[in-house]
Amino acid sequence: MYNLGTKRSAIRELFEYGKRKAAEIGEENVYDFSIGNPSIPAPECVNREIERILKEENSVAVHGYTSAQGDAHTRQAITDYLNKTHGTSFKADNLYMTCGAAASLTITFKAVVESSDDEIVAVAPFFPEYRVFAEGCNAKFKVIPPDEKDFQIDFSKVEEMVNEHTKVFIINSPNNPSGVVYSEETIKKLSEILDRKQKEYNRVIYLVTDEPYREIVYDGAEVPFVTKYYRNTIVTYSYSKSLSLPGERIGWILVPDEVTDSAAVYAAVCGAGRTLGYVCAPSLMQKMLIKCVGATGDVNEYKKNRDLLYGELTGIGYECVKPEGAFYMFVKALEKDSESFCEKAKQENLLIVDAESFGCPGYVRISYCVSYDMIKRSIPAFERLYKSYN
Amino acid sequence: MYNLGTKRSAIRELFEYGKRKAAEIGEENVYDFSIGNPSIPAPECVNREIERILKEENSVAVHGYTSAQGDAHTRQAITDYLNKTHGTSFKADNLYMTCGAAASLTITFKAVVESSDDEIVAVAPFFPEYRVFAEGCNAKFKVIPPDEKDFQIDFSKVEEMVNEHTKVFIINSPNNPSGVVYSEETIKKLSEILDRKQKEYNRVIYLVTDEPYREIVYDGAEVPFVTKYYRNTIVTYSYSKSLSLPGERIGWILVPDEVTDSAAVYAAVCGAGRTLGYVCAPSLMQKMLIKCVGATGDVNEYKKNRDLLYGELTGIGYECVKPEGAFYMFVKALEKDSESFCEKAKQENLLIVDAESFGCPGYVRISYCVSYDMIKRSIPAFERLYKSYN
Repeated sequence: MYNLGTKRSAIRELFEYGKRKAAEIGEENVYDFSIGNPSIPAPECVNREIERILKEENSVAVHGYTSAQGDAHTRQAITDYLNKTHGTSFKADNLYMTCGAAASLTITFKAVVESSDDEIVAVAPFFPEYRVFAEGCNAKFKVIPPDEKDFQIDFSKVEEMVNEHTKVFIINSPNNPSGVVYSEETIKKLSEILDRKQKEYNRVIYLVTDEPYREIVYDGAEVPFVTKYYRNTIVTYSYSKSLSLPGERIGWILVPDEVTDSAAVYAAVCGAGRTLGYVCAPSLMQKMLIKCVGATGDVNEYKKNRDLLYGELTGIGYECVKPEGAFYMFVKALEKDSESFCEKAKQENLLIVDAESFGCPGYVRISYCVSYDMIKRSIPAFERLYKSYN
Repeated sequence: MYNLGTKRSAIRELFEYGKRKAAEIGEENVYDFSIGNPSIPAPECVNREIERILKEENSVAVHGYTSAQGDAHTRQAITDYLNKTHGTSFKADNLYMTCGAAASLTITFKAVVESSDDEIVAVAPFFPEYRVFAEGCNAKFKVIPPDEKDFQIDFSKVEEMVNEHTKVFIINSPNNPSGVVYSEETIKKLSEILDRKQKEYNRVIYLVTDEPYREIVYDGAEVPFVTKYYRNTIVTYSYSKSLSLPGERIGWILVPDEVTDSAAVYAAVCGAGRTLGYVCAPSLMQKMLIKCVGATGDVNEYKKNRDLLYGELTGIGYECVKPEGAFYMFVKALEKDSESFCEKAKQENLLIVDAESFGCPGYVRISYCVSYDMIKRSIPAFERLYKSYN
């Protein structure tokens, strides 16, 4: 725990550096692309609904404990929305409200991991805290190497690495840090392999989908709803990005009836939430969701940023896959050592994140949930950086 | 996890029964004393401050991630308040904001427990989830039997049970379920023993104080601030009861500089929060606290309830220690088998909780965070119950 507490994440380190540098040379001269904090405000309905609840509803009920599963009306509103959107038929009791994505994942892992031989498999590039959460529940963490062609999934490696110890296969689409959306073909192929492996090892393998960026997609990209393709899917979600509420800690876990021993898995989720100290998800935010589920901030702002940055960077000569979702651009470093590349970028006051901790050395993550204006001002620095290599 | 999820707590079971029964025979005929959900509204400043923040402050900042430790202004406001109230000299960096008391405890246990031989010792009667949290971080859970004389602490048992494996000694004062406040004499004596044991075993023993009821005291009862008596004290707190916000999940952990290797313990707290999936405490509630720290709901409402219930029950002939704090009355069952006693009470539609899971069979907990009127209406039922035994 001491090591986890002292070894700060590289991202946060860089973010703190940026703040110091801004104080020194002026905010307008630092181009901080380090953090994935939504830059657009919560949709208007969020604050409006919170104010209405505080005014009109009974304080003891508003701020009181909800059931550990979550407020029944909130869960009904969310499953109604899911069913309308995806043509599914979930019930409120398939849903368990959580304190955000990290809570959704730690609770899910804790619920299904039974032995320290169990393996949780992620696909690079992946969000670095997956490793912390997996090891925190005493599972082994394994990584499928990246498919650098298009950052979909290298299935030959899936065939190789999914084995009789695999308990969870976790995917994140739209992806942090690549911005890639896994295609329907990818989901189908993955489902086919996992299903075959389940039979081969006579064992349930949970496909856990982490999808806080589901609504943040561009050019009409479709994000397949994975429960339709693979029976033992557990969906984890957070409103941090779609409603721009990362500090409020609100999300959910969905355990469909189709999951093997669904009721037992759901009960284990409740047990895991209890043992990890999650009494209930924040009640005012739960109640707000009854009216705001399905809303999003103005995603078009992110699209404008993506278009500007992608156009400019590829124009200069940088290589990157065009992001279809989330708010990250995943760029190939101009030297093999991406850490050293990020250091050189820092000399131009460009704060970008080495993707080594995402399981993908040789690349960098550029978060474009920033102001359009800052992107514009940063372009000459990206140009100078490119020229210094060519 | 499955067992934890399916074996509901006895309290919640009873609460659900009460709701069914109320639907059947009318709410006014069921006397539900089962749950510790505050019955008085949050102090006015809470909703007023939330509304002000939503109106005046920047949405991205209000709802954004705070640092994992918690918002710096919030931590400063809280430590200022503590220092003013207790004459201490804590700094903002001694404080780590959490998602409520359960999070404070799981994070603290996870931070300090190093081996499965480590023991966490609680004093009966104790809040039943302590066992879940202790076992959840692979420690052994041990219980000091109750001192039925006055529900302070049986020190002969402390001498016996604190040993070379003791890592944490946890106390809860004002106490749930007894309503007792540990006296200064009790805290001094406990500190003296733990200090001696530390030296004897050349080992740090953390005294963890769980004190969400600190502000809910009557007749001017003093709740000693334990850091003044014992160096290796870690204070855990929640605003669930003092601000009547149990659903909002907001509290803190205090690691004073005096704790041995304080910086390392604080870092371990940060690491434990991270591995358990607590990214930050809910941001809007953190920001509200800057102005509302130190406020409470109208505690006098609870006092009126206590006076009525204590007067009536002891008048009838029930035995109980007079509660000085919290909102529970701890009454001796009229037969040895307190479970059977609670069943008989249920026939009178009196829903009271068997204290067996609190480590104190033979007693029942009566939560008086209910309406004054319900208490009044319930008295004849308590009378009939008493007569049925005499």
